[in-house]
Amino acid sequence: MQRTLGTCYYPEHWPSEIWADDARRMVDAGLTWVRIGEFAWSRIEPQSGKLNWEWLDQAIDVLGQAGLQVVLGTPTATPPKWVLDKHPDMLAVDANGNPRKFGSRRHYCFSNAGYLDECRRIVTLLAERYGQNPFVAAWQTDNEYGCHDTVISYSNAARDAFRHWLRTEFHKPGGNAGDIDALNSAWGNVFWSMEYSDFDDIDLPNLTVTEPNPSHALAFRRFSSDQVVAFNRVQSDILRAHSTAPIAHNYMGRITEFDHYKVGADLDIASWDSYPLGFLEDRVGASPEHQRAYARQGDPDFQAFHHDLYRAVGRDRWWVMEQQPGPVNWAPYNPIPLPGMVRLWTWEAFAHGAEAVCYFRWRQSPFAQEQLHTGMLRPDSVDAPAIVEARQVSAELAAAPDVQPYRAPVALIFDYDADWAWAVQPHGQDLSYFGLIFDTYRALRRAGLSVDILPPDSDTFDDYSMILAPGMMHMSDTQKKALANSSAQVVIGPRSGARDSNMVIPTPMPPALPDLDVTVARVESLRPDMPIPLNGGGAVTGYFEEVEGTATATLQTEAGHAVLMNNDNVYYLAAWLDDPGMDRMVGLICQAAGVRTMSLPEGIRIRDTATERFWFNHSTIPIKTEVGELRPADVVRVSKE
Amino acid sequence: MQRTLGTCYYPEHWPSEIWADDARRMVDAGLTWVRIGEFAWSRIEPQSGKLNWEWLDQAIDVLGQAGLQVVLGTPTATPPKWVLDKHPDMLAVDANGNPRKFGSRRHYCFSNAGYLDECRRIVTLLAERYGQNPFVAAWQTDNEYGCHDTVISYSNAARDAFRHWLRTEFHKPGGNAGDIDALNSAWGNVFWSMEYSDFDDIDLPNLTVTEPNPSHALAFRRFSSDQVVAFNRVQSDILRAHSTAPIAHNYMGRITEFDHYKVGADLDIASWDSYPLGFLEDRVGASPEHQRAYARQGDPDFQAFHHDLYRAVGRDRWWVMEQQPGPVNWAPYNPIPLPGMVRLWTWEAFAHGAEAVCYFRWRQSPFAQEQLHTGMLRPDSVDAPAIVEARQVSAELAAAPDVQPYRAPVALIFDYDADWAWAVQPHGQDLSYFGLIFDTYRALRRAGLSVDILPPDSDTFDDYSMILAPGMMHMSDTQKKALANSSAQVVIGPRSGARDSNMVIPTPMPPALPDLDVTVARVESLRPDMPIPLNGGGAVTGYFEEVEGTATATLQTEAGHAVLMNNDNVYYLAAWLDDPGMDRMVGLICQAAGVRTMSLPEGIRIRDTATERFWFNHSTIPIKTEVGELRPADVVRVSKE
Amino acid sequence: MQRTLGTCYYPEHWPSEIWADDARRMVDAGLTWVRIGEFAWSRIEPQSGKLNWEWLDQAIDVLGQAGLQVVLGTPTATPPKWVLDKHPDMLAVDANGNPRKFGSRRHYCFSNAGYLDECRRIVTLLAERYGQNPFVAAWQTDNEYGCHDTVISYSNAARDAFRHWLRTEFHKPGGNAGDIDALNSAWGNVFWSMEYSDFDDIDLPNLTVTEPNPSHALAFRRFSSDQVVAFNRVQSDILRAHSTAPIAHNYMGRITEFDHYKVGADLDIASWDSYPLGFLEDRVGASPEHQRAYARQGDPDFQAFHHDLYRAVGRDRWWVMEQQPGPVNWAPYNPIPLPGMVRLWTWEAFAHGAEAVCYFRWRQSPFAQEQLHTGMLRPDSVDAPAIVEARQVSAELAAAPDVQPYRAPVALIFDYDADWAWAVQPHGQDLSYFGLIFDTYRALRRAGLSVDILPPDSDTFDDYSMILAPGMMHMSDTQKKALANSSAQVVIGPRSGARDSNMVIPTPMPPALPDLDVTVARVESLRPDMPIPLNGGGAVTGYFEEVEGTATATLQTEAGHAVLMNNDNVYYLAAWLDDPGMDRMVGLICQAAGVRTMSLPEGIRIRDTATERFWFNHSTIPIKTEVGELRPADVVRVSKE
Ligand SMILES: [Zn+2]
Ligand SMILES: [Zn+2]
Ligand SMILES: [Zn+2]
Repeated sequence: MQRTLGTCYYPEHWPSEIWADDARRMVDAGLTWVRIGEFAWSRIEPQSGKLNWEWLDQAIDVLGQAGLQVVLGTPTATPPKWVLDKHPDMLAVDANGNPRKFGSRRHYCFSNAGYLDECRRIVTLLAERYGQNPFVAAWQTDNEYGCHDTVISYSNAARDAFRHWLRTEFHKPGGNAGDIDALNSAWGNVFWSMEYSDFDDIDLPNLTVTEPNPSHALAFRRFSSDQVVAFNRVQSDILRAHSTAPIAHNYMGRITEFDHYKVGADLDIASWDSYPLGFLEDRVGASPEHQRAYARQGDPDFQAFHHDLYRAVGRDRWWVMEQQPGPVNWAPYNPIPLPGMVRLWTWEAFAHGAEAVCYFRWRQSPFAQEQLHTGMLRPDSVDAPAIVEARQVSAELAAAPDVQPYRAPVALIFDYDADWAWAVQPHGQDLSYFGLIFDTYRALRRAGLSVDILPPDSDTFDDYSMILAPGMMHMSDTQKKALANSSAQVVIGPRSGARDSNMVIPTPMPPALPDLDVTVARVESLRPDMPIPLNGGGAVTGYFEEVEGTATATLQTEAGHAVLMNNDNVYYLAAWLDDPGMDRMVGLICQAAGVRTMSLPEGIRIRDTATERFWFNHSTIPIKTEVGELRPADVVRVSKE
Repeated sequence: MQRTLGTCYYPEHWPSEIWADDARRMVDAGLTWVRIGEFAWSRIEPQSGKLNWEWLDQAIDVLGQAGLQVVLGTPTATPPKWVLDKHPDMLAVDANGNPRKFGSRRHYCFSNAGYLDECRRIVTLLAERYGQNPFVAAWQTDNEYGCHDTVISYSNAARDAFRHWLRTEFHKPGGNAGDIDALNSAWGNVFWSMEYSDFDDIDLPNLTVTEPNPSHALAFRRFSSDQVVAFNRVQSDILRAHSTAPIAHNYMGRITEFDHYKVGADLDIASWDSYPLGFLEDRVGASPEHQRAYARQGDPDFQAFHHDLYRAVGRDRWWVMEQQPGPVNWAPYNPIPLPGMVRLWTWEAFAHGAEAVCYFRWRQSPFAQEQLHTGMLRPDSVDAPAIVEARQVSAELAAAPDVQPYRAPVALIFDYDADWAWAVQPHGQDLSYFGLIFDTYRALRRAGLSVDILPPDSDTFDDYSMILAPGMMHMSDTQKKALANSSAQVVIGPRSGARDSNMVIPTPMPPALPDLDVTVARVESLRPDMPIPLNGGGAVTGYFEEVEGTATATLQTEAGHAVLMNNDNVYYLAAWLDDPGMDRMVGLICQAAGVRTMSLPEGIRIRDTATERFWFNHSTIPIKTEVGELRPADVVRVSKE
Repeated sequence: MQRTLGTCYYPEHWPSEIWADDARRMVDAGLTWVRIGEFAWSRIEPQSGKLNWEWLDQAIDVLGQAGLQVVLGTPTATPPKWVLDKHPDMLAVDANGNPRKFGSRRHYCFSNAGYLDECRRIVTLLAERYGQNPFVAAWQTDNEYGCHDTVISYSNAARDAFRHWLRTEFHKPGGNAGDIDALNSAWGNVFWSMEYSDFDDIDLPNLTVTEPNPSHALAFRRFSSDQVVAFNRVQSDILRAHSTAPIAHNYMGRITEFDHYKVGADLDIASWDSYPLGFLEDRVGASPEHQRAYARQGDPDFQAFHHDLYRAVGRDRWWVMEQQPGPVNWAPYNPIPLPGMVRLWTWEAFAHGAEAVCYFRWRQSPFAQEQLHTGMLRPDSVDAPAIVEARQVSAELAAAPDVQPYRAPVALIFDYDADWAWAVQPHGQDLSYFGLIFDTYRALRRAGLSVDILPPDSDTFDDYSMILAPGMMHMSDTQKKALANSSAQVVIGPRSGARDSNMVIPTPMPPALPDLDVTVARVESLRPDMPIPLNGGGAVTGYFEEVEGTATATLQTEAGHAVLMNNDNVYYLAAWLDDPGMDRMVGLICQAAGVRTMSLPEGIRIRDTATERFWFNHSTIPIKTEVGELRPADVVRVSKE
């Protein structure tokens, strides 16, 4: 596989006179890809039905003639004002019942049929015009589904579609109508007299007096995710009918409100938008001390996690579609990256298997919302620092060996449905599925391990020495069996299998794993200031389960409660562990699995490919390692020979 | 008086086949009472007018035949969806103007006439059917009035009813119409040109540009409370017409938005729902350190305070209708109680005079909102730890002497109207009447005192050695005289008598107590970080009054300002004191009253009955006392002989 | 200039029988002015068109006959209920779309034409009746424009007026219609397809999915300010047509949502309402430690800053219209001032050039919203402490020399438009223009300097030795030239000139100052915990700019980045400095300017007039200075002879 670089470009923002020079400078910097078009609807179709393709024809031609390959975006994330005038009901509605207005982007409800018609129309026109264009080498659907909290809408359109969705979920055998009694029973609506006599009785679960039924809330989360999948599929079907170029979507970091695997199943490439400094400030969820220590470098695991996640979403084909090139404009604080970090982030993506890394954006915009988002060029077209580091990567890539597919020794299951279940019912303030998974992932990384992320419906595990499946609130019997029958060391829990498919506690009590005699008798959530110490170091933090059963207690609290129980290679973890506890658990399972671990210094991370081991220094100080001293932002590649 | 145990049961949630076995296990555990029915409207009346009594007949029969006494709840806290369809305007409206939707519970506005009609109808049907049933031994109206912030509604129905209520409050002598000039004058509406020309001019006091007139806001609070009283009276009148069984309501902890004494006056028994761990996390208002120290035990005074309060509300007949049996589901953090605490909480209620303690709930529900609320049984019907502790209490009760009525040496007045006045005008951020009363109560408890709580209209004080009436913003002349004429040591203030009945500063200036020359010249609120030290220890915190007058200054600040002034047995306290300051004040008054005090160790509390003294250890460590070492969660009963 | 005292009085709140005695007591206390009428609309016109002047005639007569001069307020801040009934659409609408209701004050939208008509009518009637009254010696328009967040309204009236305003801003040359293409281009609406085809497409910038275009948001801020200016001008034009008495408005502290200079241009006197303790608690923005240290004294620079600001707004004629006399009612905490502070605050105003200081209010109101706001008298008419300190000032004034106009050595430009630009685009959380200006002002004051504040359109700087213009996001070429051509030491930046007039980054890149080769290549915002140390002491905090160019780097970071660059007397400051950094910068510029500095002890501040130097001790402890030991709250005047 060839590794390539690219950038995001907005020809509509600049006089056509400078396009050719921009293209030349891109090629000179070693870029292969240029993504365009995804916000240009008002220039393509300034009025309803009045198409204006000439500028876009020309832009693609100029870029293509210069030797660049174009990624063409569908413009559906930014419908022009006239689209809203045609469909005044297309706006998403927030949890307070307020429609979210025109004037920025993503101002649409996924359930609005009128807007979906407009999307179908414009994407068809775009695909017809450029589906066979030799310079259009890939497509992008829409832009950052879910960004700005846009998956969930409490509109009337969403309400009606949700009712329809529920009828289908609870269909009567042999008929089309839904079975409302089945829903009432599955959700336990007898509780608090919430029983419905018809699907049209069911409202969206906002503005209730106290929390809604978690079954109701989870169903609405699943429905909302399915609306995104359906919306995207309309576009991917059209594009595929007109073009053989691969289709991507650019996902955004820590957006979990829809199932990326399901969207990804309709696409050829997964890509994501990687903003290490912005994310550390606004969504990693680290302590202020950690945020301070990595303020100019970004969290050392957050990007790696997403790289591994999107490798799974893209079934091994994945890109970074937008790479932070300098300070951004949207985080609470927006510092300048440490010199070298743009190069480090790029190489890190390649180490995790990326095909391409595209810098966002080519030239800093002097106007509108992102005018303080830096680019590869300054607003006055002078080189910004990012282009210098990109040129260095480009030169290094030319001298680097080709990448070979690589399978990591450890697999971690990431399940969007579980994230929604935790969000609906966290039990303890601030507990989240993403947090649990990321804490687990960080422990694996501290141990020097490369990790593969797996979707929840995986059933072939034989390539892995270790599989971790924490927090998967609902597990099918098939999943349980596949894991239990695996030859790997398998760690399940906490909260895994805790609910049936409708968010109800099953009987027999969880986790009900084959051949493992463990029962969760009671659960508790803990204040952050009341960790429960483990016998031998580390502690339970935040969440604890009282378990019973005859399985071996491999880890215990000081008071003697079992925390990790196993029967041979199948383990149940009955708690959320702090970092030292996680390290102990990982060490213990690795030992059983015969996987060698290291204890990496703070800020140092490694990642293996089939032929090389990459070493990265995410810290601001030089650090001695077994491959020598790494300067801040250093990237060291060591051949595995 | 016989002390009894019980539980809360939802036969409609379980197959009828297991009811008999459940009943048998209840009786085996020593339970007397079983509360049912309060959320079952959708099963009693699945469609408007289509009644389905058979299952409830059977459930009552099965439980009664097993030897249990049934508490039957009216189902009006959970109107089914069809009730809302009939009365779409029945929803309460929040302060932002949003109706609160169907999908949980308590989704009604107390002022909606249509919903009140439905309640009247269903309660009449219930009373007619079961009023003479031999197994129905008590009634409960609705469920937890005010829980989930449901007393105050900004609906149109509330607005119209408020206008009517105001006409009545400001009625013209000799006529039915209200006197708007009297209202304008009483409220001082000339201020900021807020004068009304008609009662129909008056809106609800939400969404104003800056704060509304406190007289307006307080009137709305009083109206809102009266609506609860009227709503409940409709039910109690119906039940009483059909049954001789006593009627209760189950109040919720620290819900002060309506006057419990007034609701209680229409009932036979006061009961409350006691969730010590949940309350400590979400409403006690303690420091994080205190919350940590008592995370598995609950605050050592919060339950005791409510026990004493509901003894007053119930005129000596009171229950715990719902007792926490293990982790709950609704607090920010939901830990498992320390072993023994369920027993301690039960005995503590009895020590304060409870007739019955019922555990909520019998079996943990696997579905809906409370699926993480533990019960006496697990969802799979296995015994949970609570039933084990309940059995122990049951055995101990059998061996314990009967309870005799007991009068405490100290009385503390609790006035709901004062709580609303403070809420309307706290003066300092976070100052609240409840907080002041509870700080005072804690000081009395630290001194080893048992306390009676009195309603504000009490007029016979001769049984008490000490009476405290802090923070009673409005005091009638009758109240002032009754207190001043008492032979007890009487402590009034701070803020007592500070406003007239319409929330206006009276002249002569407060407190204007007979025979006590003290005038509050100026008041201030203080940042928490600026305590004012008292001469000799302790400090003023949060709130201070500059007082003038010839009364004796018994406590002073280091700078010489009087803090506690008295003439013989009548004291005016001119400040909110910190804990050491409160201890000094209590010690000083007790000495004058000839009441013996102790200085109890942290976590140890005592409570007297007529014949015994109870000692409780609320801490997690063993503590030595004059009755020996108390283990964590220990309960020691010492005969007074 | 004669310095005078006054008070704010509400005759409509009190029986007319006591007016004469109140007036006599005012005169006895040494007061000259009495402000009345500004909230009395419901008494002047209890029903639409039914005027009731008699009481006001009498009140003015009684006060005037006693020797007082009346400031008569227009009552438009408190329209009676019947005005709202006539114009139900007159309420301002908040950012969530909720109209803000009747029941307090300032319940109007500046854009509502119907309400403006009512204002025009009532002000005309008032001016006609009292324009020639010998006792009416000054006027006040409305009351505290902008208080309670009332400048910005998202009403339909505001939306329509905003569209009209934009048409005017983007008018087509030679025509009346707006040029929507010019707006699209100026705002960069091509970004995210936000282009409009008509001005009626443009909505208000609330409730957008993510942030609106900053050009859009800034335009709405400017429009909102202009609406206040226009509203006020209607009143000042009417008053001026009927009276020769000077016209004032009473501005409120740290209200920056409208341009006070523009309102002030239509008035004769600027006045402001000074509440030092309330402000320290709710708007200064200091650390808790600082708030604690000055809880009873107020911030030592906040009042001084506003005095200097309103001297500029009033073109040297300015008053304190409302002076805090004791605890107020509206801050989070409301302590009693340190004895002597009312006197200190009064003298401080005079030291900064005030013509008059009026205490708010004469007698504490026993009713309505401000019943806990103290006055010069208690509610029962007994003297409160403020009147005692006022009498002392009055006596001291009689013995003091007359004031001479004074020009300070240092000028600081304050630009409301820049404040809006920063609010629209702070870049870092909590960064604000006001904060930057106030940090700069505090540093000048710590150095013992008296400061003149200048409006942004100043063009004659020759009287000053030093001029500072930080943070002025947009600077016209004229402004740049005027500053660069000044003979003073001129400090520009950070962020000065960073945007064009439509909030777009200009080319050539900022600051583009004549004869100063400095270019801001990149900007970053910093977490508060990551200061960048300066070489030699102090640090950059919050905001930093990477600059390039050949100008001299006078201050640098430890890492060698230029922070202060200059060419001769023109400096560009490329960062927000912490206090030690600000002190170094001020010291360095003062040295170049030949201005002598001091290093004042914590809590000590000085202010020069033409003939005297005033020393103030804002701390709670005695402090030794070159003019002797100052007691807490001390005021020392030293003749400059
Ligand atoms: Zn439509
Ligand atoms: Zn109705
Ligand atoms: Zn109107």
